[in-house]
Amino acid sequence: MTTTNSKIILGKNQYGKAEVRVVKITRSTDRHEIEDLNVTSQLRGDFDAAHFEGDNSHVVPTDTQKNTVYGFARDGIGSPEEFLIRLANHFTSSFSWVSGGRWEAEQYAWERIISHGAPHDHSFVRKGQEVRNAVVTKDGDNVYVISGLNDLTVLKSTQSGFVGYPKDRFTTLAETTDRILATDVSARWRYNNEAIASGAIDFNKAYDDVKALLLEGFSEEYSYALQQTLFQMAQKVLDAHPEIDEIRFSTPNNHHFLVDLTPFGLDNPGEVFFAADRPYGLIEANFQRETISDAGNSWDGIAGFC
Amino acid sequence: MTTTNSKIILGKNQYGKAEVRVVKITRSTDRHEIEDLNVTSQLRGDFDAAHFEGDNSHVVPTDTQKNTVYGFARDGIGSPEEFLIRLANHFTSSFSWVSGGRWEAEQYAWERIISHGAPHDHSFVRKGQEVRNAVVTKDGDNVYVISGLNDLTVLKSTQSGFVGYPKDRFTTLAETTDRILATDVSARWRYNNEAIASGAIDFNKAYDDVKALLLEGFSEEYSYALQQTLFQMAQKVLDAHPEIDEIRFSTPNNHHFLVDLTPFGLDNPGEVFFAADRPYGLIEANFQRETISDAGNSWDGIAGFC
Amino acid sequence: MTTTNSKIILGKNQYGKAEVRVVKITRSTDRHEIEDLNVTSQLRGDFDAAHFEGDNSHVVPTDTQKNTVYGFARDGIGSPEEFLIRLANHFTSSFSWVSGGRWEAEQYAWERIISHGAPHDHSFVRKGQEVRNAVVTKDGDNVYVISGLNDLTVLKSTQSGFVGYPKDRFTTLAETTDRILATDVSARWRYNNEAIASGAIDFNKAYDDVKALLLEGFSEEYSYALQQTLFQMAQKVLDAHPEIDEIRFSTPNNHHFLVDLTPFGLDNPGEVFFAADRPYGLIEANFQRETISDAGNSWDGIAGFC
Amino acid sequence: MTTTNSKIILGKNQYGKAEVRVVKITRSTDRHEIEDLNVTSQLRGDFDAAHFEGDNSHVVPTDTQKNTVYGFARDGIGSPEEFLIRLANHFTSSFSWVSGGRWEAEQYAWERIISHGAPHDHSFVRKGQEVRNAVVTKDGDNVYVISGLNDLTVLKSTQSGFVGYPKDRFTTLAETTDRILATDVSARWRYNNEAIASGAIDFNKAYDDVKALLLEGFSEEYSYALQQTLFQMAQKVLDAHPEIDEIRFSTPNNHHFLVDLTPFGLDNPGEVFFAADRPYGLIEANFQRETISDAGNSWDGIAGFC
Repeated sequence: MTTTNSKIILGKNQYGKAEVRVVKITRSTDRHEIEDLNVTSQLRGDFDAAHFEGDNSHVVPTDTQKNTVYGFARDGIGSPEEFLIRLANHFTSSFSWVSGGRWEAEQYAWERIISHGAPHDHSFVRKGQEVRNAVVTKDGDNVYVISGLNDLTVLKSTQSGFVGYPKDRFTTLAETTDRILATDVSARWRYNNEAIASGAIDFNKAYDDVKALLLEGFSEEYSYALQQTLFQMAQKVLDAHPEIDEIRFSTPNNHHFLVDLTPFGLDNPGEVFFAADRPYGLIEANFQRETISDAGNSWDGIAGFC
Repeated sequence: MTTTNSKIILGKNQYGKAEVRVVKITRSTDRHEIEDLNVTSQLRGDFDAAHFEGDNSHVVPTDTQKNTVYGFARDGIGSPEEFLIRLANHFTSSFSWVSGGRWEAEQYAWERIISHGAPHDHSFVRKGQEVRNAVVTKDGDNVYVISGLNDLTVLKSTQSGFVGYPKDRFTTLAETTDRILATDVSARWRYNNEAIASGAIDFNKAYDDVKALLLEGFSEEYSYALQQTLFQMAQKVLDAHPEIDEIRFSTPNNHHFLVDLTPFGLDNPGEVFFAADRPYGLIEANFQRETISDAGNSWDGIAGFC
Repeated sequence: MTTTNSKIILGKNQYGKAEVRVVKITRSTDRHEIEDLNVTSQLRGDFDAAHFEGDNSHVVPTDTQKNTVYGFARDGIGSPEEFLIRLANHFTSSFSWVSGGRWEAEQYAWERIISHGAPHDHSFVRKGQEVRNAVVTKDGDNVYVISGLNDLTVLKSTQSGFVGYPKDRFTTLAETTDRILATDVSARWRYNNEAIASGAIDFNKAYDDVKALLLEGFSEEYSYALQQTLFQMAQKVLDAHPEIDEIRFSTPNNHHFLVDLTPFGLDNPGEVFFAADRPYGLIEANFQRETISDAGNSWDGIAGFC
Repeated sequence: MTTTNSKIILGKNQYGKAEVRVVKITRSTDRHEIEDLNVTSQLRGDFDAAHFEGDNSHVVPTDTQKNTVYGFARDGIGSPEEFLIRLANHFTSSFSWVSGGRWEAEQYAWERIISHGAPHDHSFVRKGQEVRNAVVTKDGDNVYVISGLNDLTVLKSTQSGFVGYPKDRFTTLAETTDRILATDVSARWRYNNEAIASGAIDFNKAYDDVKALLLEGFSEEYSYALQQTLFQMAQKVLDAHPEIDEIRFSTPNNHHFLVDLTPFGLDNPGEVFFAADRPYGLIEANFQRETISDAGNSWDGIAGFC
């Protein structure tokens, strides 16, 4: 067995079980409820011996972490945020050397199938729009909650332009005051630590409302730049939700190029567009209140979002 | 240049431009409409010289096919089926050696963003549920139309079982009368040739109705096997739509395994499930009327669906 | 339970377990061997009662099919073709109502890790180039074997052009005698039925050789069109392999557009290219000998390839 | 236009063009060379007015950033690291308000096709194993370089076990001293800032060597845990490469479950395995020297890796 190389230090590390797919059916009445999550559990703490010595006496198996997810789901999920907090408290209280960790979930939305004009009791169709997510980080006694969504694809067919930018030797882009603006919104918002501790946040209700506000913020004003539109979306969320300290965006600019139809003897007054794949613009911006609670390490490991 | 090897014959062949992404905004009023398609155009005919001699005098460039898609979109799309028929007629009438071809499209659905309580005039969010598709095949004077959808993910949390199957040396599966049944519906239905020729089919209306019937057929009865449920879905469609000759399914059985919680001292009365990825059951079945119009080569090149 | 609707006929159908991931380690000596397959088994025969009545007495569970794959792997795999033939013979001989079926596999290649200058006995790295595949179809007593590969990405940086094509109103493409030609080769070749029956084909050796010939055929001559290059590749394979009756291609034209650098005061003599995603050309062509053995239904369900 | 909301602060932000696909052919002799990159350029600096006012006077268009990638490629790429450093220096020196940024690239490896026994001059096949990547961060005068690779899939068929771990109520995993260990290595290593500044690093040579050492480190010793194997891999790299300060891993434990064949009357002495998809173990660990140069913000935005 390799012995510790005194010159090499173990830095940040975490481990666990990723993408535990759990579907919870609540069948207390004939009108079933469904919750569908993809959960990742990762522990942090004192794991030096595992890395340097191959000594697993501290290594709570990833298989055990998976089992715990299923065991805890038996009591219901409620919201991804609450479920992850329960897991976080369990692992840090059960194993003395586990000082914290990171618990993440995606949640997939389902709606009832309409059958003979009425929502069905136990048949569902996946909604298939954006994917909701949540990250709970525990670091000692601190608990951080970041909620978010991915891939909410939106488009406005007018009321967007891009002018007044600097030009240099490599600039060929023409200015325009009427273009399609389209993006796949990925947003993450972090809740205020005191609000989390109070237990008063209704995470499901907050989620629905933030999504609606993001859509409204995208829609209502002329967009001089995607950056500006992100600010308008952020502003709506922060104005309406005092329990949210900050919101971050990572949004592609999904280019829709007006096709030049003049070679075919046709005009194209903003009607026919080529939707391009790559490359795409990529705009990342974080908006926060002047005074916010400490974020700790809660943003670590979240890709994009600067 | 390689000359023809008399011993090698060119069999079936087709070529064209794949995945032409076209977004059409109709802005005749301030209330814009959006159509979002991914079009593939492939020509068939006399292309021997291109293969054997590198002689391109018959090869309508794939770039030209792409341009034609955009040019035709200037006049509107209407429905993917109608748009593809227009393309088919254009290419076969414009080039004497083009005897037919295959035109395919996916269509992505958008809905208006609700802003301040009302659907917005020009801001949209992608619906993100199933993907609609259409294949038009032209072979000489014959025109075939197959419509379909992919990835309509459905689940029923009870009223499904699997019993009475044969057992052999390799059988370990236990019978069950209450399980989750889940699948991603991929279905394709072929329209009657006379109905197509009559021009009387409203493809958009038919699509919406078929989707609703598939969902209803999935929901309403106890499922003894996914095969049987597919029949029930087919039956609803064929009963309600005399203009449809046949419908085919390729549907995974998305296994949801009941998690054994007894090692943790917990029961699990149909509440906690592991949603598995691979392997999955795969059920393919075609249902048709006793008398149907000739399908010609219209099913060629459609993956799955037997 | 739904009773048979006499007006609806069950057409072609098949069912089974898809994507059974099996890794076989042969450890008869310390120098281990690895075989890594993704197997799909689908049965055909008399399954009317399952669809119309929900009567599963003929439905060999897909779970049993999965188990059989693992049980058979215990005796070794050898080649995907031979393994699938064994499965085909097993299912059709074990269940009287199973008249045939379709067995498909992908195989992933691994190579030994070089450690201290020598190939390691039991440590492997995935090769990661193309994916090999095979489809065995059994229909009564007939056995068909189609072998193939996907995603063999190739590029030639010169010796390719495209000229002499017809022009119409929608043509804007400029002719070129020097361009990049790039594609992801997907090819499928069908073996002669007598050669299969003889048991004399070494499928692994044939595979390696066909792959090498495809690469050589792509490389050696000037390409006037991708169609012509496919013929040259086919010719090499059919000339060298009398046991192969036909070969089919489905190949994108992965466009690499020369970037116009003149706005930046730079020339671009075939040096800087933009590799585009969509749309792409798509060329499908089948080449066969003048006389070939009957293909039966063996090409059904293979996407693309016309 | 929305005016600044004084209560909302713009936090970290960056923007640019993502996934600029550039293929560079060097054709100074008949023996062409190919470099194939996917480049993302993102600028940081003073962009408040764009977000709060829609004032784009500081917004170097993402289109211009794309053009610059192509223009710079005209002079050759050399290594992704050097190419990104050139871009970083260009943007920060050309625009006074651009104080830094992040430039990232993936590089795809090609090898010459063997034709008639010899490597071809201008025909290539994509190697298709791991994907190389690089991230250059510039922050004022500081330049950071992180190199890495993704998806190097490795497997050892013995000499791996997992024992001695803690058990609790949720533990069902059995200990084993002989299992398959498999992972997709994603590793990132950061170069010492002085070594970068010296210009003496041969990034291509270092890359090839690090990859070889990672493979060797994975292979040679018994693995008591993936954590320990990562340490052994890190140790080899840090011992051999003084110019590297730290190396980080994010590695799935790709579970290969021994299939229980006893119901079929078969033994299974480590021969037949089910390769599972999800869930998977996920091990992330960072190893560094005792004394390292400042990392600044160079690890921000890299997903995984804690």
